[in-house]
Amino acid sequence: MKIGLLTSGGDCPGLNAVIRGAVLKGVISHDAEFVGFRWGWRGVVEGDFMPLVRHDVRGLSKQGGTILGSSRTNPYEGAGGGPEAIQRTLDENGIDAIIAIGGEGTLTAARRLHDEGGINIVGVPKTIDNDLAATDYSFGFDTAVEIATEAIDRLRTTAESHGRCMVLEVMGRHVGWIALHSGMAGGAHAILIPEQPQSIEQICEWVESVRDRGRAPLVVVAEGFHLDTMEEAHSHKGLDAFNRPRLGGIAEQLAPMIEARTGIESRDTVLGHIQRGGAPSAYDRVLATRLGMAAVEAAYDGAWGSMVALRGTDIEVVSIAEATGGLNTVPQERYDEARILFG
Amino acid sequence: MKIGLLTSGGDCPGLNAVIRGAVLKGVISHDAEFVGFRWGWRGVVEGDFMPLVRHDVRGLSKQGGTILGSSRTNPYEGAGGGPEAIQRTLDENGIDAIIAIGGEGTLTAARRLHDEGGINIVGVPKTIDNDLAATDYSFGFDTAVEIATEAIDRLRTTAESHGRCMVLEVMGRHVGWIALHSGMAGGAHAILIPEQPQSIEQICEWVESVRDRGRAPLVVVAEGFHLDTMEEAHSHKGLDAFNRPRLGGIAEQLAPMIEARTGIESRDTVLGHIQRGGAPSAYDRVLATRLGMAAVEAAYDGAWGSMVALRGTDIEVVSIAEATGGLNTVPQERYDEARILFG
Amino acid sequence: MKIGLLTSGGDCPGLNAVIRGAVLKGVISHDAEFVGFRWGWRGVVEGDFMPLVRHDVRGLSKQGGTILGSSRTNPYEGAGGGPEAIQRTLDENGIDAIIAIGGEGTLTAARRLHDEGGINIVGVPKTIDNDLAATDYSFGFDTAVEIATEAIDRLRTTAESHGRCMVLEVMGRHVGWIALHSGMAGGAHAILIPEQPQSIEQICEWVESVRDRGRAPLVVVAEGFHLDTMEEAHSHKGLDAFNRPRLGGIAEQLAPMIEARTGIESRDTVLGHIQRGGAPSAYDRVLATRLGMAAVEAAYDGAWGSMVALRGTDIEVVSIAEATGGLNTVPQERYDEARILFG
Amino acid sequence: MKIGLLTSGGDCPGLNAVIRGAVLKGVISHDAEFVGFRWGWRGVVEGDFMPLVRHDVRGLSKQGGTILGSSRTNPYEGAGGGPEAIQRTLDENGIDAIIAIGGEGTLTAARRLHDEGGINIVGVPKTIDNDLAATDYSFGFDTAVEIATEAIDRLRTTAESHGRCMVLEVMGRHVGWIALHSGMAGGAHAILIPEQPQSIEQICEWVESVRDRGRAPLVVVAEGFHLDTMEEAHSHKGLDAFNRPRLGGIAEQLAPMIEARTGIESRDTVLGHIQRGGAPSAYDRVLATRLGMAAVEAAYDGAWGSMVALRGTDIEVVSIAEATGGLNTVPQERYDEARILFG
Repeated sequence: MKIGLLTSGGDCPGLNAVIRGAVLKGVISHDAEFVGFRWGWRGVVEGDFMPLVRHDVRGLSKQGGTILGSSRTNPYEGAGGGPEAIQRTLDENGIDAIIAIGGEGTLTAARRLHDEGGINIVGVPKTIDNDLAATDYSFGFDTAVEIATEAIDRLRTTAESHGRCMVLEVMGRHVGWIALHSGMAGGAHAILIPEQPQSIEQICEWVESVRDRGRAPLVVVAEGFHLDTMEEAHSHKGLDAFNRPRLGGIAEQLAPMIEARTGIESRDTVLGHIQRGGAPSAYDRVLATRLGMAAVEAAYDGAWGSMVALRGTDIEVVSIAEATGGLNTVPQERYDEARILFG
Repeated sequence: MKIGLLTSGGDCPGLNAVIRGAVLKGVISHDAEFVGFRWGWRGVVEGDFMPLVRHDVRGLSKQGGTILGSSRTNPYEGAGGGPEAIQRTLDENGIDAIIAIGGEGTLTAARRLHDEGGINIVGVPKTIDNDLAATDYSFGFDTAVEIATEAIDRLRTTAESHGRCMVLEVMGRHVGWIALHSGMAGGAHAILIPEQPQSIEQICEWVESVRDRGRAPLVVVAEGFHLDTMEEAHSHKGLDAFNRPRLGGIAEQLAPMIEARTGIESRDTVLGHIQRGGAPSAYDRVLATRLGMAAVEAAYDGAWGSMVALRGTDIEVVSIAEATGGLNTVPQERYDEARILFG
Repeated sequence: MKIGLLTSGGDCPGLNAVIRGAVLKGVISHDAEFVGFRWGWRGVVEGDFMPLVRHDVRGLSKQGGTILGSSRTNPYEGAGGGPEAIQRTLDENGIDAIIAIGGEGTLTAARRLHDEGGINIVGVPKTIDNDLAATDYSFGFDTAVEIATEAIDRLRTTAESHGRCMVLEVMGRHVGWIALHSGMAGGAHAILIPEQPQSIEQICEWVESVRDRGRAPLVVVAEGFHLDTMEEAHSHKGLDAFNRPRLGGIAEQLAPMIEARTGIESRDTVLGHIQRGGAPSAYDRVLATRLGMAAVEAAYDGAWGSMVALRGTDIEVVSIAEATGGLNTVPQERYDEARILFG
Repeated sequence: MKIGLLTSGGDCPGLNAVIRGAVLKGVISHDAEFVGFRWGWRGVVEGDFMPLVRHDVRGLSKQGGTILGSSRTNPYEGAGGGPEAIQRTLDENGIDAIIAIGGEGTLTAARRLHDEGGINIVGVPKTIDNDLAATDYSFGFDTAVEIATEAIDRLRTTAESHGRCMVLEVMGRHVGWIALHSGMAGGAHAILIPEQPQSIEQICEWVESVRDRGRAPLVVVAEGFHLDTMEEAHSHKGLDAFNRPRLGGIAEQLAPMIEARTGIESRDTVLGHIQRGGAPSAYDRVLATRLGMAAVEAAYDGAWGSMVALRGTDIEVVSIAEATGGLNTVPQERYDEARILFG
């Protein structure tokens, strides 16, 4: 079999380990042949790819990013896209199947390409935010949590030295997993996530209770969190939207609000892209390698239109529909569990 | 409720996070009172303990080791032990229950103390080797894998620079989980585990095939691995047993055997105690914190004689019998999965 | 002798190691007594201090921040300050001397207090930016460079995966040492420092030349850098000053300017407080410990009004005037050396 | 100019950064051409080399080991060696000069080849042990100290949890710099170095004094340390020499001796090759890059037979004789300084 690999969407530690796992498994167990499409779906639509032999994936498990490049190109958008164009690329180059490594958008597209276009596709879930259902965890998430936790450890000592409140913004546009886990690991005094809007009054109550115990408050906030006092939030957001076209911003809003209300000097830090770059943790390397290997096995089993996923300690083959059917949000009981430690 | 905590057996990153999780959960949710028994069961038998209030657990989630101390004392051994002595300590000090954090031995003893002595006990599984059944993973394991993987990353560059074979010995007396995961994460060319004896011929075949591809072979071996060519192993072991009373030793045996047979200069490294010390990974901090909190909840639910465990993404209350009924060995399919990447 | 220690100004990894080194050296070699003034000069002026015995400094060498707290209080400002108030605090509490650990402001104040007020003071240079003359390096700097370098390593893989330009802002208000060293260590394609204003045209030329070689450009910029095309800079700064009261900001300005001119998608990351928190590097622990010990020795030698400093591999006693006489800027030849690697 | 680079002797973090610095400097500033000799002097004698262009050194500053390979081949040994063979390789391939990166042996050979054979050579000092005179520090040393310090941090928590004495063996065959710096950074209770033989009685006195203060003793020992009670050492060494052909061994001797005399359970850990592998610290990357660049500059200045070295904050060109004239041992005052913190 000749298989084309692609990585799509925001990069994530472990992408290269998936590629390496897939190529080694395919070459060694099945004598498969591989190509790598460049820059995600764009490479498929444009027929831009490179051969991937065993030597090319050497040492990749510890390497961050993706050697194939990635983009947010949607295979259905633009003039040249769609199932026909993709099938043409495959046919013209004798490629039998695609292993698509990507998030919600990529997996949804993969499913349509299979269902509507009959294209042989297996999906590998990629989400640093851990927002895909149908898999317990996805690679990249553990590394991001580790990096955010290390940042909290560092911020804590500087906070205590100056009696300041620190507000750390981590990734998490729609779900708060990175904030929840890093906040628990780092002993944060408040964890603010998109699933659980809070009022500024509640946040300040937590912050003040920490100060009253003689400590420096540490707040971890997911980028997608919003205050539930809408007016307040809006007036700040309005200002923000106009002048600051960058992602994030919630920590920049919260720090001065906390300082104004509590009188505690407050500072914000936005972790940003550091969370998604660099060498994956051992956990993510193992998970990504196993997913890559399993995706090839699924291809050889003809499980087209399916996706590999972590369930407990096993890698299983599941339907893409399961993964894309809804966001993997932080359940109420997990937030309640963490909330006991606040304040 | 007044709860006594103890940590028993070899230490493990995350013990302090369990203690912190339990104390915070108990104090905040239930207004519980806590004491910490010193040096494991010894403290229970001898009535040696210290009060544990909220302030005492501050900042503990990132601290390695155990503030309570640990030992391998068995509560049933010696003159002063047994259920009566333990019950006496509890009665005399108004302690209602014990949360025992320990491995197979501790959990077995906990179960007997509950079953035979009617003592109120909840167990928390602790095993850096990941050898307990009934929990998907235990805290400390992820940290150990991370440290072993970092060692592999470091050894690889020195191996390649000199064209040497490196043999790294990691923990794992009865099961090979640390070797399996770190070997997969680090891209080892052979992973040797207690569950899968191999002949020296097979090992050298893997090593030579790596050399023939122009690379420096990297072998990860669990301390409990043994060769299946018994004579060979014995003759070496005989020598070893006489002169070297230290733990480990398999890497020291293998390196010269590999060098003698393949002609490839070989070196061994024994990671040893470094794997069990120091700050836990974020993964282990979250797991340990959740287990500590859940153990207190189990105590308030009166789930005596049970144990908290990780299942998928949930913490569940299970019977201790499940955990101590058999070793959590590496299944054949997991070894086969990894073995594809050898050689 | 009874010595009072204080830490003043922004915190810095290694402050606690200085404290530990001073206390251990004093207690063991001279049977000295120590107190720690809380929150910098404020503690001296207000007579707020705590005893420091050997036990209090246990394990401190690896701990970030300062157990004494810090503030930017100037001993000469406010109603209660000045040499008389300070001498009164010392006299009333039988304190013979002060070891003041701080930056330019603290050392200048220390010198005045000694010269004008006859107070027994020894200074220890503290500057994470490495901007003090008279010492080759100061503790905290190495840790900050290490953290910034790790960030560059991480940003590089995500930059390459998306073909983006990354702009990383590091500390350095008046001097560019952190940017220079981390940029060299991380292989940055442009290093922008306060000492060397550059035009946006020059920066974009470097960025484009990197892109033309098929790579993702990585720019490291010190927070105090400014463009030498003044109009451009001003028009952006005007906007900025109005809406964004936070520190930093140069990276946020540069990224969109680079993107607009080169067409290369550009992202900024501001490292911020992470650079100054957390465990010091081994280098900084050794340096800080030695400085703390040497400061006590200087006190016992009666070298009042002087400061300890690193010269080559030695710790020497120098005049405070030397350190505060001028900024330790990046010399032209060091920038030229690094600049060869740009573009 | 066409310059041949070689790396010789044990590998060391930073070798690749030297290579990268040299090639970039040469190509960009002087339009130089480079080749890399494989496996140290062996490549020069045998004419085994590869071209090194700008692209080949991309990303090398953070990569451990040496892409050229290394060996302990002496250019004067064997049938084919000597200045004539080397000059022949140079002449036949149009190579004008050699930059030799290596330790005492390599630099001595380089000097002879220049003095006796008139070969154009510039040396770059490489010693992870920091045992070369004429340079304040050499690259690799800081990384090794960092790794050893992290090991001490980890060992401490496990030691305290079990009330054990830990003996950590670090590199340092003839000089104790790694032990001295990591021991100071990690807060070791005894530092044992080749320059300062101690009796087992003295070591046990330090260990017991730590235990008496309620702490777990931590001993750092350089591999080249020897007891000054010769009989004791010999009787153990005799046994050792026979059965254990591996490097190191002093920690394995000391731990049981300490346990036998003090009654404190003692464990040894040998760091071994981990200290010399993997990514260099930022400090070492900067130093190595600067040395590589300076070596090329020295070549273009015709400073044959000289060596580049760190002096304070500057890279200077010095005579090789200076570096090879004597070991850079730990001076008495540095040991005395550290010794105050023992026990």
